[in-house]
Amino acid sequence: MKKNWFEDKIKKFSSIGGYQKPELIEDSVKLDSNENYVISKQFQNDIISSARKNSDIREYPLGGVERLIATISKFAKIPSSMIGVGNGSDQILDLILSNFASNETKVLTSNPTFGFFEERCKLYDIPLIAIPFSDNMTLDIKDFIQQSKNADILYLDSPNNPTGFQFTKTELQKLIKSFSGLVIIDEAYGEFSEYSLSSMVKTQNNLIVVQTLSKSFGLAGLRLGYFIANKKFTETFMNVLQYPYPISTITIESGIHALEKSKQMKDTLEIIKIERKRIVETLQTFDAFDVFDSKANFVLFDAHGAYKRVYSALAEQGISIRKLGKIGNHNGCLRVTIGTKEMNSKFLLAIRDLLG
Amino acid sequence: MKKNWFEDKIKKFSSIGGYQKPELIEDSVKLDSNENYVISKQFQNDIISSARKNSDIREYPLGGVERLIATISKFAKIPSSMIGVGNGSDQILDLILSNFASNETKVLTSNPTFGFFEERCKLYDIPLIAIPFSDNMTLDIKDFIQQSKNADILYLDSPNNPTGFQFTKTELQKLIKSFSGLVIIDEAYGEFSEYSLSSMVKTQNNLIVVQTLSKSFGLAGLRLGYFIANKKFTETFMNVLQYPYPISTITIESGIHALEKSKQMKDTLEIIKIERKRIVETLQTFDAFDVFDSKANFVLFDAHGAYKRVYSALAEQGISIRKLGKIGNHNGCLRVTIGTKEMNSKFLLAIRDLLG
Repeated sequence: MKKNWFEDKIKKFSSIGGYQKPELIEDSVKLDSNENYVISKQFQNDIISSARKNSDIREYPLGGVERLIATISKFAKIPSSMIGVGNGSDQILDLILSNFASNETKVLTSNPTFGFFEERCKLYDIPLIAIPFSDNMTLDIKDFIQQSKNADILYLDSPNNPTGFQFTKTELQKLIKSFSGLVIIDEAYGEFSEYSLSSMVKTQNNLIVVQTLSKSFGLAGLRLGYFIANKKFTETFMNVLQYPYPISTITIESGIHALEKSKQMKDTLEIIKIERKRIVETLQTFDAFDVFDSKANFVLFDAHGAYKRVYSALAEQGISIRKLGKIGNHNGCLRVTIGTKEMNSKFLLAIRDLLG
Repeated sequence: MKKNWFEDKIKKFSSIGGYQKPELIEDSVKLDSNENYVISKQFQNDIISSARKNSDIREYPLGGVERLIATISKFAKIPSSMIGVGNGSDQILDLILSNFASNETKVLTSNPTFGFFEERCKLYDIPLIAIPFSDNMTLDIKDFIQQSKNADILYLDSPNNPTGFQFTKTELQKLIKSFSGLVIIDEAYGEFSEYSLSSMVKTQNNLIVVQTLSKSFGLAGLRLGYFIANKKFTETFMNVLQYPYPISTITIESGIHALEKSKQMKDTLEIIKIERKRIVETLQTFDAFDVFDSKANFVLFDAHGAYKRVYSALAEQGISIRKLGKIGNHNGCLRVTIGTKEMNSKFLLAIRDLLG
């Protein structure tokens, strides 16, 4: 290697910039990261307490991942041999990209898509064919079927972050069946929508469905993701690509408890869907906003020229949402997470005070 | 890409095999993974309880990594800007290799070295120059200085796993100063030895010192590693290569508590060093064994033709050690972790019963 290759690499990487986390606003009404506050903090505390009692953190979690996968298997009704886990779905996506993709594999996706995925593609010099959203924040399945002929990998977050858009199940199935490359469907927000493609993995060897306990289960702090894929891929991923101990003992045991009590999570979905409808309908009453339909636990809206003012005014009142700016032809995009009824009311009241 | 590239990649990866974890033997005297049982389980329980009280696991750990790094900074007496963290030191090593190394960068190391590191080099087709240990399980610094002229990256675990060997501080400093490529010194077992090279990072821009809380702090189950390196590398690693949320909230908060109470860890080091001496000296009384000096919390010995029998006889009595087999000219290598006084006595008694 030529002299200074190490410094040159650092320079190259530092020019990429990396994923931008939201601002840390202490004690805020936190509607910026699509977390689930409808699940009670007490339930989460109980999970950790049980996990602690069943664990010896002095030891590597030998056998823990296997027990976790068995529990996911029961929850998802998919054989254990088709399930793998990771340190958040971030790590699963990263290991797939760093090992299967390169500057020779074209990835077909939407613009925008999950920010972390876009950043990893930049890092690994993976070329993207990124189809933009229409003015009403939808995608056209025909564009994807057309462009898939030029792609090696298809990545879609379903529903999409940050728009909340999701293809119909029939559309997405048709796209996957027509494509011979690797398909990654990221269902991080899948539980908030009407369908999952996980069972399609049984007949589609090129399909990986990625899921997480960060959103619907309200376990973002524990960093636990999983995927469903064919046996050969799953076995190779877990034995060779994945680390020997990718997940902490407490995360493993807490994840098992949460999955065994998944009714708690499912109960919150109904509340979140009702609240999502309320937020969409209330925001639509303001002429200043374009509000987009969402299948996820957040709502995207365009506040046009007022978006920075809206964001700052909310932040001043201790309400944190996500400032996104330009998406397609929409210049003032903001994304608000669906929180508890009380959190959402505070948000809507603040908006009313500001614009009403 | 050509047809079936995805299946071909899976086939290629599956031929690698991956890191071999120890056998899971339920309720065993666990001396197989270099964990620290001298730290009390109660202390670890208290750490997790405090972590739980300070956390809301429904949220991403925004700002948590920064607080953790500030605590490591105080503990290690190194500026925060020179410290990065990862999901175990495994993840730190993996991100360095996958982003800085390739089939064009030759890595100089010892044979054997940390198994996970070797496996990742195989996965990424990174060529190794691996210098074997001598018959008394030592390395010759002259060989390394000589071979470093042909290498781009130097990786040494200091002390070495599984031999327990460590260069003198002067030797290692000389080697690093003579080398212009990237140097990774893995001090996973550094606390059990007499020195650390962490402060050398201040003057050596090509040096990364990797550390972990898995061994000395007895936190293997929490998956927490860190590194010390120059500011530019550290900033780029943390902002671009590292994930936005690489470590769980509970691991962050527990790590902070453990580091703030590092006296607990330091007290165990003295006990482990005394016990190490006892194990080495006792094993040396058996003619059947060659026993090697160790600077880590384990001892390597060659049981020659009897090694499988010794391993199995211990396992039958519920004592789990690591079966390694051939290392250099030594065909029957076994590695035993230094546990509590009671655990070590059980191990030595079983050996005496078997061979005495």
